[in-house]
Amino acid sequence: MPGPFDIPLAALRQRTSAKWTTYGVDVLPLPVAEMDVRLADPVARVLHEAVDRSDTGYAGDPGPVRRAFAAFADRRWGWPVSAEDVRTCPDVAAGVMAVLRVLTRPGDGVVVMPPVYPPFFAWVRTVGATPVEVPLTGVDGGGRIDLAGVERALAAGTRVVLLCHPHNPTGAVHPAADLVELAALADRFGATVLSDEIHAPLAHPGSGFRPFLTLGAAAERTGVAFGSASKAWNLAGLKCALVTAGSGRRDVLEALPPELGWAVGQFGQLAARAAFDEGEAWLDEVVAGLVRNADLLGELLLRHLPGVRSPRPAAGYLAWLDCRALGLGDDPAQVFLDRAGVALHHGPDFGAQGAGWARINVGCPPDLLTEAVRRMAAAVAGRSLTPPVGVDHAG
Amino acid sequence: MPGPFDIPLAALRQRTSAKWTTYGVDVLPLPVAEMDVRLADPVARVLHEAVDRSDTGYAGDPGPVRRAFAAFADRRWGWPVSAEDVRTCPDVAAGVMAVLRVLTRPGDGVVVMPPVYPPFFAWVRTVGATPVEVPLTGVDGGGRIDLAGVERALAAGTRVVLLCHPHNPTGAVHPAADLVELAALADRFGATVLSDEIHAPLAHPGSGFRPFLTLGAAAERTGVAFGSASKAWNLAGLKCALVTAGSGRRDVLEALPPELGWAVGQFGQLAARAAFDEGEAWLDEVVAGLVRNADLLGELLLRHLPGVRSPRPAAGYLAWLDCRALGLGDDPAQVFLDRAGVALHHGPDFGAQGAGWARINVGCPPDLLTEAVRRMAAAVAGRSLTPPVGVDHAG
Ligand SMILES: Cc1ncc(COP(=O)(O)O)c(C=O)c1O
Ligand SMILES: Cc1ncc(COP(=O)(O)O)c(C=O)c1O
Repeated sequence: MPGPFDIPLAALRQRTSAKWTTYGVDVLPLPVAEMDVRLADPVARVLHEAVDRSDTGYAGDPGPVRRAFAAFADRRWGWPVSAEDVRTCPDVAAGVMAVLRVLTRPGDGVVVMPPVYPPFFAWVRTVGATPVEVPLTGVDGGGRIDLAGVERALAAGTRVVLLCHPHNPTGAVHPAADLVELAALADRFGATVLSDEIHAPLAHPGSGFRPFLTLGAAAERTGVAFGSASKAWNLAGLKCALVTAGSGRRDVLEALPPELGWAVGQFGQLAARAAFDEGEAWLDEVVAGLVRNADLLGELLLRHLPGVRSPRPAAGYLAWLDCRALGLGDDPAQVFLDRAGVALHHGPDFGAQGAGWARINVGCPPDLLTEAVRRMAAAVAGRSLTPPVGVDHAG
Repeated sequence: MPGPFDIPLAALRQRTSAKWTTYGVDVLPLPVAEMDVRLADPVARVLHEAVDRSDTGYAGDPGPVRRAFAAFADRRWGWPVSAEDVRTCPDVAAGVMAVLRVLTRPGDGVVVMPPVYPPFFAWVRTVGATPVEVPLTGVDGGGRIDLAGVERALAAGTRVVLLCHPHNPTGAVHPAADLVELAALADRFGATVLSDEIHAPLAHPGSGFRPFLTLGAAAERTGVAFGSASKAWNLAGLKCALVTAGSGRRDVLEALPPELGWAVGQFGQLAARAAFDEGEAWLDEVVAGLVRNADLLGELLLRHLPGVRSPRPAAGYLAWLDCRALGLGDDPAQVFLDRAGVALHHGPDFGAQGAGWARINVGCPPDLLTEAVRRMAAAVAGRSLTPPVGVDHAG
């Protein structure tokens, strides 16, 4: 049985998604947050069947995917979410922006915790609000919430906190105790915590991941969570995500505009239902593969690029590379792209704290990861490289 | 060879889209704007292939679909649109709202021409603007733009006109002369015309449909057009549409937020490319079927419901039913749903002008249309009906 990551590079190059069409064929693409996986069988099956039924109209009854998500959340995290508190939306971006539009007026602040997934800044600005930066502390170790900093922001009038849990780019899983305290702070100030949990199903074993809305009464009063099958089952292009309100924030769901449901992808909704209901064995295989790839990345860096440090991700397939010791300037990703034919995500896009860092995506075949680090090391060592070196054997 | 509409009702009832999951099995659903068609072969093929490649990440390079749309527009309408003036967006709703956010500030007016597709009001309100109603004239004949009314609205300070071309719900195709005059008015006042041309590929032969942006220099200076494969090839759930700016409104494209491209459906983009490039023979078959269904609707109404008048649609699969002579009150669709088990779209949702009207969707198997009108007639005649009467033989 081939594993989910057993795909030859030549097959990946046939893909038409963003990851595989943004760069030329001499570049190994490790930026965009898609995984190089084979679809879970139950997901592929419902998609083929939907095509055979010509079932390509507007996304239908959201009941099945809501219930599937609720059942998955209960099995996986002991989270007894009620399907009635779940709304579908096309993606986390649209869901967060719609909720921000409910909760903010132009000029209001929204706490973001850099270094963080760059669109957080863009979403806040697109709705007319202003990012209020409360940087993570201890990013070398994956990063912790600066609770005192959040308190100051709330005391100064900010009423929304955009949390990334697990955190992109470091892969940190916030400890439950920190989240409990964050919820208490939000509760004290009447603020709302938007917990982006898109990477949650990919939490590694032992990470201690707990959904924000399972952390007690204050979290229930203040929290709105965003979930999706899109990262874990690699369905980002099919457009379905889920907004779940804590019992104290059901008003937010009621205030969402009617367009949001019509914007959901029909195939995304069908695929997410299948993923949550029937895709957990596949998911566990993928997580095991990601843990192996995170180990591999650690070994490869030690061996080939000892100047680069990277906090061990506790979730997902992204890792944050501290390249400052290499002396490649603020944007090492650009250097690796130009000199090594390896595309990473640019550190400075994640906030000022990202200067000298880059984000790598390890959701790929191990050989591809190995080849990427080998190329990066050669470029740093100043060895001349004529890409594509061995690239067609990498997969 | 079965035609695109040759699908048994039992097969349609297997569909999970909005049209087929909103009502119970005893209801014939003719409201939501999806068609009961078999997918065009080239579209089904690219979708199956994408599933086989596990190609479900973010929508990739938009170049191919832009070029396919441009080539289609040129072949079909002699519209030499340049692919660089085209942007992808997930659907017309998102595209129009994104453009409205560029062009308006909260409280600004936007001209809409009721009776019109109900979300037009919702989109304008969602972005914080205010609908300025300039009702169509002569709706009995399909409806014409009230150019004097538009002029008054522009003179009073409104700077955006949301045009539906072809018009939903009447299926009217606006005469080129009216559009030329509309463009001249917009040009005079420095206003922008948003031309929603989602139904355009389904214009019936002889309708004289002309894309707004082909109508001269003033249209080029003032127009932004919205196109899609979603209505014509029944792909609304896959999430890809196209915004095209006239040469004078390229600034609008530049101002669109970066999220819009990431929101596009990967399968929608692939399907739209295939539809525009290879789906024109299928399209012509569908249009021929729609013309036959429009004829059939006319005959069925004459025979069974002579009190109902309906302007002959010149495009698409929607028809506007004047039921006022039946004395069923403001919302005949509710009466037909309750008494006949036939779901139509509620007339009053289209604006105050819709009182006593209902919208029917003839993009269905002819037998289903026949059965629907038969049921409606029986309900009006007060004959008792126990749905589902013959419903399983209707398809
Ligand atoms: C933390 C986080 N949130 C949201 C997204 C985007 O999600 P979506 O595609 O559902 O908008 C990503 C994608 O990488 C992400 O990492
Ligand atoms: C005139 C018109 N515009 C837009 C839409 C919605 O398009 P989309 O699904 O691309 O938002 C419809 C759907 O029926 C329509 O009739």
